[in-house]
Amino acid sequence: MLTSTPFPKSFASDNHTGVHPAVLAAIVEANTADAPAYGDDVWTRAMEDAFRAEFGDQATAYSMFNGTGANVVGLGLVLRSYDAVLCPASAHINTNECGAAERLLGAKLIPIPTENGKLTVSDIRGQLFALGNTQRSQPRVVSISQVTECGTRYTADEVAELAEFAHAHGLFLHMDGARLANAAAELGSSMRAFTTDAGVDLLSFGGTKNGAMGAEALVILNPELDAPALFLRKQGMQLASKMRFVSAQLTALLTDGLWHENAAHANAMAKRLADGVTDLPGVSLRYPVQSNAVFPRLPEKAITELQQRYLFHVWDAEENVVRWVTSFDTTLEHIDAFVSDIRLIVRGVSGDA
Amino acid sequence: MLTSTPFPKSFASDNHTGVHPAVLAAIVEANTADAPAYGDDVWTRAMEDAFRAEFGDQATAYSMFNGTGANVVGLGLVLRSYDAVLCPASAHINTNECGAAERLLGAKLIPIPTENGKLTVSDIRGQLFALGNTQRSQPRVVSISQVTECGTRYTADEVAELAEFAHAHGLFLHMDGARLANAAAELGSSMRAFTTDAGVDLLSFGGTKNGAMGAEALVILNPELDAPALFLRKQGMQLASKMRFVSAQLTALLTDGLWHENAAHANAMAKRLADGVTDLPGVSLRYPVQSNAVFPRLPEKAITELQQRYLFHVWDAEENVVRWVTSFDTTLEHIDAFVSDIRLIVRGVSGDA
Amino acid sequence: MLTSTPFPKSFASDNHTGVHPAVLAAIVEANTADAPAYGDDVWTRAMEDAFRAEFGDQATAYSMFNGTGANVVGLGLVLRSYDAVLCPASAHINTNECGAAERLLGAKLIPIPTENGKLTVSDIRGQLFALGNTQRSQPRVVSISQVTECGTRYTADEVAELAEFAHAHGLFLHMDGARLANAAAELGSSMRAFTTDAGVDLLSFGGTKNGAMGAEALVILNPELDAPALFLRKQGMQLASKMRFVSAQLTALLTDGLWHENAAHANAMAKRLADGVTDLPGVSLRYPVQSNAVFPRLPEKAITELQQRYLFHVWDAEENVVRWVTSFDTTLEHIDAFVSDIRLIVRGVSGDA
Amino acid sequence: MLTSTPFPKSFASDNHTGVHPAVLAAIVEANTADAPAYGDDVWTRAMEDAFRAEFGDQATAYSMFNGTGANVVGLGLVLRSYDAVLCPASAHINTNECGAAERLLGAKLIPIPTENGKLTVSDIRGQLFALGNTQRSQPRVVSISQVTECGTRYTADEVAELAEFAHAHGLFLHMDGARLANAAAELGSSMRAFTTDAGVDLLSFGGTKNGAMGAEALVILNPELDAPALFLRKQGMQLASKMRFVSAQLTALLTDGLWHENAAHANAMAKRLADGVTDLPGVSLRYPVQSNAVFPRLPEKAITELQQRYLFHVWDAEENVVRWVTSFDTTLEHIDAFVSDIRLIVRGVSGDA
Repeated sequence: MLTSTPFPKSFASDNHTGVHPAVLAAIVEANTADAPAYGDDVWTRAMEDAFRAEFGDQATAYSMFNGTGANVVGLGLVLRSYDAVLCPASAHINTNECGAAERLLGAKLIPIPTENGKLTVSDIRGQLFALGNTQRSQPRVVSISQVTECGTRYTADEVAELAEFAHAHGLFLHMDGARLANAAAELGSSMRAFTTDAGVDLLSFGGTKNGAMGAEALVILNPELDAPALFLRKQGMQLASKMRFVSAQLTALLTDGLWHENAAHANAMAKRLADGVTDLPGVSLRYPVQSNAVFPRLPEKAITELQQRYLFHVWDAEENVVRWVTSFDTTLEHIDAFVSDIRLIVRGVSGDA
Repeated sequence: MLTSTPFPKSFASDNHTGVHPAVLAAIVEANTADAPAYGDDVWTRAMEDAFRAEFGDQATAYSMFNGTGANVVGLGLVLRSYDAVLCPASAHINTNECGAAERLLGAKLIPIPTENGKLTVSDIRGQLFALGNTQRSQPRVVSISQVTECGTRYTADEVAELAEFAHAHGLFLHMDGARLANAAAELGSSMRAFTTDAGVDLLSFGGTKNGAMGAEALVILNPELDAPALFLRKQGMQLASKMRFVSAQLTALLTDGLWHENAAHANAMAKRLADGVTDLPGVSLRYPVQSNAVFPRLPEKAITELQQRYLFHVWDAEENVVRWVTSFDTTLEHIDAFVSDIRLIVRGVSGDA
Repeated sequence: MLTSTPFPKSFASDNHTGVHPAVLAAIVEANTADAPAYGDDVWTRAMEDAFRAEFGDQATAYSMFNGTGANVVGLGLVLRSYDAVLCPASAHINTNECGAAERLLGAKLIPIPTENGKLTVSDIRGQLFALGNTQRSQPRVVSISQVTECGTRYTADEVAELAEFAHAHGLFLHMDGARLANAAAELGSSMRAFTTDAGVDLLSFGGTKNGAMGAEALVILNPELDAPALFLRKQGMQLASKMRFVSAQLTALLTDGLWHENAAHANAMAKRLADGVTDLPGVSLRYPVQSNAVFPRLPEKAITELQQRYLFHVWDAEENVVRWVTSFDTTLEHIDAFVSDIRLIVRGVSGDA
Repeated sequence: MLTSTPFPKSFASDNHTGVHPAVLAAIVEANTADAPAYGDDVWTRAMEDAFRAEFGDQATAYSMFNGTGANVVGLGLVLRSYDAVLCPASAHINTNECGAAERLLGAKLIPIPTENGKLTVSDIRGQLFALGNTQRSQPRVVSISQVTECGTRYTADEVAELAEFAHAHGLFLHMDGARLANAAAELGSSMRAFTTDAGVDLLSFGGTKNGAMGAEALVILNPELDAPALFLRKQGMQLASKMRFVSAQLTALLTDGLWHENAAHANAMAKRLADGVTDLPGVSLRYPVQSNAVFPRLPEKAITELQQRYLFHVWDAEENVVRWVTSFDTTLEHIDAFVSDIRLIVRGVSGDA
């Protein structure tokens, strides 16, 4: 018998989740007396300190409203009008930002096909032709996602190898870290280990999926790129007037390791979910589970049945791959009920009941 | 003797103020269980209903992060690549958005000098030349601010006259309503009276200065312009993933007339402040007080002394005009203490003690 | 013994060639008395008539300075800010225009890998997902090159199939015809047969490589797209003040079939060149010869030796494929001398002398 | 009796004129054998030498198709995304380029009203506020026209004063020299005297109005700005494939002082024209005659009658000011016939026959 009532907990996205109580409390606490607007306030100073503590003294952090904002403002710091971004074809900037980079920056994206969302040095090397040839948009920055849109993560060594190669060829390394915390939790390391210490120049730090209400940050790790950031954030329509309420969210996540706790829990839930179903007939994983997402192939009929009770997206309709995402507030009970229902339904459609 | 401790209440901007308790309560209430992202949630539905109730059944509302976002996305709905915006030289889009309209829309702004921030039909008529001439950017939309950056407001008749003239000449009328509520409170009318009913096509509705944490809306009053709005908001980096928390703020303001109460109070405080100082020697008003801002000329030395205890901006350094802004939480005590100190200081510097 | 003196005739590009005498004569003839600027002249009227005669009564033609100009202005007629162009990865707009489409139009190009530069219906169908999803740039126009950058051509039926599919799915069909005449000569048909009659909406017509000094045209075959063309050409910096001298070139090419004569000759020279070398050891063609370009694989050492005496580009350094291009003024003697030298050199490096 | 047949010689614009015979001869001569495309040819080398000879060794010149192209590519060398151009309200870039600077560069133009098309140091100083304030587009470059759109010119000292002030405040000085030669002829100096030697950073050099078929140049006088010019020209759709035919035109003008001869003659014709009519009743000059244009106020009826026989534009319809432009091939006979007819007509409508 199916254990769940329909739609009790979403597995569609970690932004279906609400706000972590500690983040909400920080917002409420910041609502006291007047404060200067546009970031000239003590909450923003504290946020900047918190990012320095996490990513090193040279890190400068700028609050943004959403991930597209952080990506576009960040890339805008390095792109000249004739430059191109090298990125995986699956990159969020390429597939899910409605052409914002092309429209707002005038940039060319050069999408590179990958197996699992991860770029390699060889991928970059293959694009280093026609350098100096004015007919071609010039590769200027490599953009990778940590974790990737496929839920996979780069090790610190992998990032360092990319950064070293990029820098040796005059390119910058940008990291879309909408789920950066999940990578750190998975790797069992600090976030700094695979960003600052690995040579990342520009980082989009994701707070929203980690438990914020709506708070992202552009973190500039290469201080030579910092100068125009305030102008680009303003022009990029990412400047919050009552910024303290955005900054307070980010600080809350960076305090007492809340970011890690949230991410580690979500990752653990994803692993538990994957472990609970991979032995089933007709079920296999498209990508390894290295964060808070699971991409299983399922029998087509099982997908249909499951979607009547659970919210999740189909990732690849031709290959019957779906995407399940867990969150900081996904519970053992959520997972176990979901697993139970999946097993019942998959076995049912497989005639293996 | 000066009555105040330094910086007890800011008169620099209505975005130095925090969040109205009812808005904060609405945010907290929205933090329950999972909800679909990107606006497919019940709070956003309620917000849309609230805007329809206020502005008419044909109104469609889209939450935005800030006013620049609302303005740029809205103007983007009507501008073709070769079009121009007619606006007062003092317009926020012309002076305070870091060229976002030019950069993100590729639009030309044609700034028109005004006495008090208000455009007239004659101003627009004077720009209706070289129509169809491919050498000139073509006027396509008139953008006015209600209230203006000078704190003045258009009556419903004035807006209707502008709209009628604009429409008769193939132009649209856009209204930057960062302080729309203050205009309604001043005019003693609904907001609809001088927007929908007066022929405004596109409206940027300001929630933040009225008491929200950070919530603006693009309200499309001319339904023929609605089609691409969702794409433009997404591409314009104004799409909130956990949108319920933005929508809930807007709904709170639009519920039980909170928007009106907040604006009316702020306006009353501005009037009290102006009334308290205009009899002083060397003090006169640059613009009439028609909202929550006061623009007095002061003796230069008084400005310097006052700024040691109070936060406010100099508006026109050459003419010693400053700007004082009140808010929903400015109290009688704030005003009276401020007035008392102004009187003491102005008289002191005037040798009129 | 090598027959040639170094660099007697370039095989690097058809724009290494000068101006056809009839085109030059037309320019000289146009230099008489005063004439209105910006296209309001009799030579431009004649040019427009000539395009109508060739492409049908509904065709409107706009002179452009170069092919990038024609492509960008043409695509600008159909692209909304959130739209994407579907094109072969090898398309000139994608690889050789320094990101002009992204920068000047803000457009996203979606490059599709092909075998030989030609798109198929299946390629387009594969991109028709996430339609209406605001996170994805929306496919709006299919851009193909006739002939392609690989020297291959579409038959009229192939174009018609693409156009029919595109139109059935709300897409437009754009054709980059930098070497359109060569396609017509190869197919033994009018240019109209595979453009207007096949359903092409927008055409970049190439005059320069066909014998002009510098003259291209945007030809709008779908009259619904015509309205903003004059504005976009002006804004796109493609408006010639003394336009008569550009128009006269285009008219000269379109008079008495000069365009066809030039293209047919160039094509014949390319075929003769290909026929003269394909029997050699280690020599094979990467693409079929269907216009005025030959893409042979050669022994690596032969490339080096040949480049000491002849101008041509390496097309694919890894696979030792080079590109040879012929022109309206390439003579039999040029070809025969080149073939003779190629044979000598290839046999020499093959130890087959 | 009126002396003229209708429209024998245009006074509407110097681009109604054809090509100077020496320029045409240079084009014909360049049509010999093959040459590399895109500027890698001996004619382009010669053109670059000619510009160095005229403007100094550090000058680099890039051929452009038209003046808008030269202006936009030039300004693009200095503008960051958040920068503004300070220019006279009457500047061609502001009024006659269909918003190309805004659209293609994303730049904000800050138009400054002037009496006669000329900017002053005081005008610039008045815009040097809110520097470093991220809400305002930052002044980055001052753009002046030499001669101005009003036919007036700056002396070398005036340019030097502007340049000195601009540089002292971190601004660059750009000069739109569509009619640069006319200024030099008027001032009786080299072109270098009021460009390179006066501190101009970027120059749009106009060849077309001076006698070319279609040839302008971006001349970079401040070598620190040179690096990205080739990329910006290509991306800006101003790269000619058979560039030798553009370069040859520019070289012809710069050879043996042809540019000076053409400009001096045109200027002299304008002076003769002005001298012939300013004693008439109701006729006065709006601007001093300092180049090849005359801006007289005329009786309204005289304008109507004159336009039946002569081509010229009305400059200011409200004030009955027209614009007459002379050219290198305007003859004494043209002027004398025109003057005779003007006198007859003006006296006729004045009842002063």
